[in-house]
Amino acid sequence: MSKSFVLVINSGSSSLKFAVIDSKNGEAVLSGLGECFGLPESRMSWKINGEKTEISIEGDDSHHRIAISKLVGLTEELGLQENIVAVGHRIVHGGEKFTKTVRINEEVTAEIEKLADLAPLHNPAGAIGIRAAMEAFPSLPQFAVFDTAFHQSMPKRAYTGAIANELYTDYGIRRYGFHGTSHYFVSREAAKMINKPIEESSFISVHLGNGASVCAINNGESVDTSMGFTPLSGLMMGTRCGDLDPGIIEYLLKKGWSQDKVFNALNKESGFLGVSGITSDARGILEAMEQGHEGATLAFQVFTYRVSKYIASYLAALDSFDGIIFTGGIGENSMPIRREILSNLKLLGFEEDVKGNEDARFGNAGVIAKSKMLNALALVIPTNEEYVIAQQSVELL
Amino acid sequence: MSKSFVLVINSGSSSLKFAVIDSKNGEAVLSGLGECFGLPESRMSWKINGEKTEISIEGDDSHHRIAISKLVGLTEELGLQENIVAVGHRIVHGGEKFTKTVRINEEVTAEIEKLADLAPLHNPAGAIGIRAAMEAFPSLPQFAVFDTAFHQSMPKRAYTGAIANELYTDYGIRRYGFHGTSHYFVSREAAKMINKPIEESSFISVHLGNGASVCAINNGESVDTSMGFTPLSGLMMGTRCGDLDPGIIEYLLKKGWSQDKVFNALNKESGFLGVSGITSDARGILEAMEQGHEGATLAFQVFTYRVSKYIASYLAALDSFDGIIFTGGIGENSMPIRREILSNLKLLGFEEDVKGNEDARFGNAGVIAKSKMLNALALVIPTNEEYVIAQQSVELL
Repeated sequence: MSKSFVLVINSGSSSLKFAVIDSKNGEAVLSGLGECFGLPESRMSWKINGEKTEISIEGDDSHHRIAISKLVGLTEELGLQENIVAVGHRIVHGGEKFTKTVRINEEVTAEIEKLADLAPLHNPAGAIGIRAAMEAFPSLPQFAVFDTAFHQSMPKRAYTGAIANELYTDYGIRRYGFHGTSHYFVSREAAKMINKPIEESSFISVHLGNGASVCAINNGESVDTSMGFTPLSGLMMGTRCGDLDPGIIEYLLKKGWSQDKVFNALNKESGFLGVSGITSDARGILEAMEQGHEGATLAFQVFTYRVSKYIASYLAALDSFDGIIFTGGIGENSMPIRREILSNLKLLGFEEDVKGNEDARFGNAGVIAKSKMLNALALVIPTNEEYVIAQQSVELL
Repeated sequence: MSKSFVLVINSGSSSLKFAVIDSKNGEAVLSGLGECFGLPESRMSWKINGEKTEISIEGDDSHHRIAISKLVGLTEELGLQENIVAVGHRIVHGGEKFTKTVRINEEVTAEIEKLADLAPLHNPAGAIGIRAAMEAFPSLPQFAVFDTAFHQSMPKRAYTGAIANELYTDYGIRRYGFHGTSHYFVSREAAKMINKPIEESSFISVHLGNGASVCAINNGESVDTSMGFTPLSGLMMGTRCGDLDPGIIEYLLKKGWSQDKVFNALNKESGFLGVSGITSDARGILEAMEQGHEGATLAFQVFTYRVSKYIASYLAALDSFDGIIFTGGIGENSMPIRREILSNLKLLGFEEDVKGNEDARFGNAGVIAKSKMLNALALVIPTNEEYVIAQQSVELL
C-alpha cells in the first residue's frame, strides 16, 4: 500500500517546527524542532520513535535554509522521501486574500510576504521557509495552510471593529482571528463524536494553550473568535493580557512609559505570569495554588472566569448549539481549569461528568459535562493541526 | 406637609447640570444646565414647568462658581430654598476609597481631588462644584454620590486586569466601572416590579446612552461591569470604541500616529460615529438605516451584537438570574435596538413581547420579553440618577 506522507513546516522568526505526517491517520513519522536561529546556540533536534537526536546549526546562510536543507538528507536517510508527496506550510496570516488552503506558487509566496504588515514576526519567516523548501524539495508540490483562513466566514458584525471605518479600508484593521486550523479540526472531530454532519453542528471551541482563543462555530463555519487583529486580544494567556481597557494604555503612556515598555508588558509580562507574579505556565499556577499561593489563585480565577464569559457570550453568535469543545495543552490536560470554567456556567445548565472530566487527559477525548437545558455537551478533543495541514495538502494534490 | 428637596449638582469640566429634586418621588421641581464654561458663549439655562430661561455667564471668576452662586438667587426667587434640605453632588470617581454615598467634609473633598489621577477631566470639576456649593449654601449639608461606588462589591476575579499585579498595587489600575447610580436604581425598581426583595434578585442591567455599560447584579450587588479602569472600555458607544484589541493601538503608533491622534480617534471618532461614518446618535443611525445606509446598518449590527454578547457573558457572573433591564436614552426609547439585542439571545430562550416592547418608551416601564428556559424577563426601566442622589442624601441627614 502506498503511503502519502506530508512534510509539515512551521517557520517562526527564529525557529522552525517540522514533522513528517501520515496524511491517512495524522501520525507523526518524524517530528522535530529548530531553534535559537541566528544565535550561537542555534540547533535542530528530532525524534523518531521517541528517540531524540540533536545537531548544532552553523553557517552564514539563513538558519531556516540550513535547517530545511538538512531535512533532505534526513528524510532520505530514514527512507521517508519516496513516501513524501507534498510539503505543507503553516502560515499565520492570510489576510482577506486566503480563505482556504492553497497550492503555493510565486504569486502566493509574494502575497504572503505582502501580508507581513499584519504579521511582522510570522509571515516573513513563513515565506523564508517556503522559499527554502522549494529549493530543497523542488519536485514536491507545496501548500500553504493559514491560521486565519477558517475565520474568513465571520459575518461583518463580528469582524468589524467599533472604530472608524477608514481604519479598515485604509489599514485592513479588523478581526482576523487565529488558531483557525485547530478550531477547524476539533469541530470536525466533535461532529463525528455526536454523529451529526458538520454542516448541521454548532460548537463553541475553546483552544487553551500558551496562546488561547475561543471560536463560535455555526453549522461548521467560524462566525466569531476572540483573537482579533492581532493574537494579543481575547482571552488572558500565558504572558498576554487579552482584552484590555484601551484607556489603560493611554494612562501608562501619559505616565511616561515608552511605547515599547507598554506593549512589551502587555505581550510578555501579563496573563498568568503578570497576575500570579510567578509563572506563565498553567501547571505551575495549579501547583502554586495547591500550596495556597494568592497570586496563583487569583490568576486561576481571572483566567477561568474570562473563559467562561467568552463561552457564554458566543451563545449570542449561534443559531443552534451542540456543545463546548476544550482543546490545546491546557484544554486537553487541565482538569481543574475545565472544572472551574464549567462551574461558572451553571446557569446554562452545565453539570460536570466528574469521571469523564478526570479521564479526559493525555490525548483522551471524552464527554466531560452536559446541559439538559441547552441540550448540549462539553467535550475534550485533542487537537492536531499538523494532521489538518497534511490532509488538506493531499486533498489538493 | 414639609418638603424635602435636594439640590443635585453634576459638575463637568466645562459644564454643570443642576436640578432641585423632590426626594420623596424623584420629581424635578427645577432643572437646568450650565455649558460652554470658559468660552465667550458660556451660558446657563433652566426649566420650570416646561418653560425655559437662559442667561449668559460672564466674569473672570470660575464659571462653575458663578453658576452655582446664581442658584442661590434663583432658588430664593422661586421660593424653593426653605424646602431644600441638602446638596447632593454626582462625583465620577470614588476609587477604592468610597464604596457608598458620604457626607462631604474637607477630608472628603481632598480625597476626591486626590483621585483626579484616575478621572482627570471629572474629579477636579466635581471638587470645584463642591467648594462652590459649600460657599453658596453654607448652611446646607452636602453629600457626594459616586458613579463607581456601586461596583465596589465586585469580586477580585472581575476587577483584576489580566496584567502585571504591580499595575494595580503601584498605579491603582483595575476595573472600577461607572454608571453605578443608574445600575443601582434600575435594579431596585426591577426587584419591586417582580415582587422580590432586592437581596434575592439578580439582573443584568444594560444602560445604553451616549455612554453605555452593562452590569451583572447578583442578589442586589454589582459583581461585574463592562466599563473598566476608564469609561472607554466595554460596549461600543456614541463615539467611543469600547473593547479593543490592544494590538491595534500598537499598530497605529508604529504607523506613525501620535498618541493624541490615536486616543482622540478611540474616544471621539469611533463607536456609532466611526462605524457609520455619519452620526454618533442612535436615532440618526436608525433613520439612516431605514433609508438603506450601509454604514448605519453595520453600526446598528455591530452595536447590538456586542450588547447581546455582553448580556450572555454575564450569565457566567451570576448565581441566579431574574432578567435583563434596559435603561438609558437608547435603552428606554429605541425599540428596534432592543428587538435586535433580544433576537440575538434566542438560544437563551428570549421571546419578544412585541406589544410590550413597542409600548415601552418615553418613560414607560414594562416587560418586553420572556425566557421560559431561564425563567427570566426582559424589562425596560427608565433610570433616574438624580432621584438616587436626592434619596441617598436625605437618608444620611
